[in-house]
Amino acid sequence: MGSSGLYGGIEAGGTKFVCCVGTGPDDIRAEARFPTTTPEETLGRSIDFFREQATTAPMAALGVACFGPVDLDPASPTYGHVTTTPKPGWTGADVVGTLQQALGVPIGFDTDVNGAAVGEARWGAGQGLDPFVYLTIGTGVGGGAIVNGAPLHGLVHPEMGHVRVPHDLARDPFEGACPFHGDCLEGLASGPALARRWGVPAETLPAGHPAWELEAGYLAELMAALVCTLSPRRIVLGGGVMSGPGLFPMVRSRTQELLAGYVSSSSVAEGIDDFIVPPGLGEWSGRLGAIALAQAAAVTSTG
Amino acid sequence: MGSSGLYGGIEAGGTKFVCCVGTGPDDIRAEARFPTTTPEETLGRSIDFFREQATTAPMAALGVACFGPVDLDPASPTYGHVTTTPKPGWTGADVVGTLQQALGVPIGFDTDVNGAAVGEARWGAGQGLDPFVYLTIGTGVGGGAIVNGAPLHGLVHPEMGHVRVPHDLARDPFEGACPFHGDCLEGLASGPALARRWGVPAETLPAGHPAWELEAGYLAELMAALVCTLSPRRIVLGGGVMSGPGLFPMVRSRTQELLAGYVSSSSVAEGIDDFIVPPGLGEWSGRLGAIALAQAAAVTSTG
Repeated sequence: MGSSGLYGGIEAGGTKFVCCVGTGPDDIRAEARFPTTTPEETLGRSIDFFREQATTAPMAALGVACFGPVDLDPASPTYGHVTTTPKPGWTGADVVGTLQQALGVPIGFDTDVNGAAVGEARWGAGQGLDPFVYLTIGTGVGGGAIVNGAPLHGLVHPEMGHVRVPHDLARDPFEGACPFHGDCLEGLASGPALARRWGVPAETLPAGHPAWELEAGYLAELMAALVCTLSPRRIVLGGGVMSGPGLFPMVRSRTQELLAGYVSSSSVAEGIDDFIVPPGLGEWSGRLGAIALAQAAAVTSTG
Repeated sequence: MGSSGLYGGIEAGGTKFVCCVGTGPDDIRAEARFPTTTPEETLGRSIDFFREQATTAPMAALGVACFGPVDLDPASPTYGHVTTTPKPGWTGADVVGTLQQALGVPIGFDTDVNGAAVGEARWGAGQGLDPFVYLTIGTGVGGGAIVNGAPLHGLVHPEMGHVRVPHDLARDPFEGACPFHGDCLEGLASGPALARRWGVPAETLPAGHPAWELEAGYLAELMAALVCTLSPRRIVLGGGVMSGPGLFPMVRSRTQELLAGYVSSSSVAEGIDDFIVPPGLGEWSGRLGAIALAQAAAVTSTG
């Protein structure tokens, strides 16, 4: 181990895996990406990649930012497993155990969104800001948080996307797309919810379409709920939906309206443009977060 | 200092101050309580109490769980001050500075609700549970949280009472009592909101009155929002409104309905009676929390 070692990272998504080796944003030595198929094949390809990389330079630790739900309780017999998922073959998959047995290095493990939050906190838009929240608005709506220096783990992983929000049926008669809650935030504001409400893929909705103002309103409800509960010093909004035209300025101004001056902080007043921001690491939040998880695991294991 | 010292605590409320000296729930040596008048008089009476107590046994540190809003940023020039409050005379009051100058001991300082959360986490219903949330439902609705071993401090103190919740105007045409947001949670579910909606003081509403089922529904919305954001391992509900007849069981079952099985944890299923609970320390959460804040300050100051 020690300072000469490299770190491995896996951004383990439900659609694709991205594996990389390096020490930070300016030093990614190698990368591989492949579709998420069975656990055997997908973890096997990951192991092959890291074994080959280790012939060049030793790997001090591995970090995994994993799709879920996953078991994050170190005291649990199923720590590091995917728990129950509609993704075929993955329910009960022992991600950490499989990788650790094959690679023999300390493994840092967290959810995909906590991983992205860790990456942004280390090298991106969350540096020096605690509490800090990373959200992704895409196929689903998910969030991760850093609080008092560490990722927020709770009773269950926080399901920020499933916050219930005011829903004016006169303005928006769409019943919502969440199979559990109907019109929770994810049910109203995810990419698939947009597509179902408007009958076209979200990315084809043009600038000025009423879809975007409605979307901004729902996302602002989530912003306001987070300000009232986690009180982050900054919120990063990532994910495909956020490329919607004009969405960021509309979310910011609607968030100010909702908070209605009660929160007396310059961050949500004249500083709102720096309070609700896109990811500092672009598409790289998750895989760099995995590298950061690896570094934390190496420190822990060497005391 | 050292193990022979006692700790002082102030539960500094907007209505009354409770000062005490001791080391924990089974060892409170002295107590004084008086109404909150001007800062000079109220802090002066507090100082007199602790000075007199110090003639018997030295005080190692003092903890203050303070009404607010307060400045909790140790780097701020106004750390330990009350910031802006409708309470006459208190805007800008330097609580920590005044006490420290007079008493010459380390001072632990936090909001009233974080103080109560610290007390419950140390000796009450939150022991060993992290994250943990303490809420008070009374004249207002406020909350404090312990996350990753420390009180949650954010951009601003979390204003959990001001979460916006779904509001069915057909079922509940009351417009809400919050001067900032109208029908946020506090606007719909605080004691004064109950009194305005029903035209009688909340404590006079009898068992079986529809007020309680409606109230339980709003509080369950807050429970669900907290599960989705902070994901606490337990939520304590204190404050006068919670003595409403049958309120706890209704809040619990409605919370389960709202989460709709999405959160797969036994704590919110068969364990719900242990998940949403009254304070373990009864009326003492805040003042014992102040003692715990003092103990933490003593540890910090002695390294």
